[in-house]
Amino acid sequence: MDLYFSCSLTGGRGDQPVVAALISRLQALGHCVLTAHLADASAMAADGGLSPEAVYERDTAWLRASDAVIAEVSTPSHGVGFELAYALERGKPVLCLAREGVRVSKMLTGIRQPGFQVRTYRTVEEALAHQEAFLGR
Amino acid sequence: MDLYFSCSLTGGRGDQPVVAALISRLQALGHCVLTAHLADASAMAADGGLSPEAVYERDTAWLRASDAVIAEVSTPSHGVGFELAYALERGKPVLCLAREGVRVSKMLTGIRQPGFQVRTYRTVEEALAHQEAFLGR
Repeated sequence: MDLYFSCSLTGGRGDQPVVAALISRLQALGHCVLTAHLADASAMAADGGLSPEAVYERDTAWLRASDAVIAEVSTPSHGVGFELAYALERGKPVLCLAREGVRVSKMLTGIRQPGFQVRTYRTVEEALAHQEAFLGR
Repeated sequence: MDLYFSCSLTGGRGDQPVVAALISRLQALGHCVLTAHLADASAMAADGGLSPEAVYERDTAWLRASDAVIAEVSTPSHGVGFELAYALERGKPVLCLAREGVRVSKMLTGIRQPGFQVRTYRTVEEALAHQEAFLGR
């Protein structure tokens, strides 16, 4: 599948190790991760060279082209929230993953749209298991 | 006009004084602010009694009913990002206000849709002036 992975960049990259593990597993399973650059610890630097318009146009094109969206939502992010709404408007299946114990916006946890789910994890292994269950539906 | 004001709740309320000033001015000008509870320092507590589904249903209904959206975007927020995309999909005019110097997601600053604008401010007075210019278009 062609997958769009979404996570906080501007707001902080504290979840980068789990993001890297999730993206790496998706690729190992044979999926195409359109946003694979997010696995890189220097993703901010990579995007730093692009104009805001270029980032917006690229990311919304990738969202439209994707079969499903997976988002790490432990760190608040305008971009991730925007992308989730954009994807849902286009009927994409969406999985949100959050570290257990973090407070996630009710605008996400309150969504009752078919194909949308929020799951919490304690370990990277749990996050990977949620991701595989989502893809295996 | 019926206005939807949007700002970070879960991710932090550091911008609450400017939010309160912006909402208060809108009301003084005779507008109906659907989310006027955000002006209250205890807005989190107020929402705390509502289920996530109830918050999501209420806020998306208000977005659909609004004539325009004003968002304070200095603090990253999944909910605000989600609401901005939801509003743009429905053709609502949107003003984003950010404190000068904060880094705002390129997914917002890169939007080139008619009726969408991001403005920075150094003082509450500047934020109020941006808001009035937006409403006076």
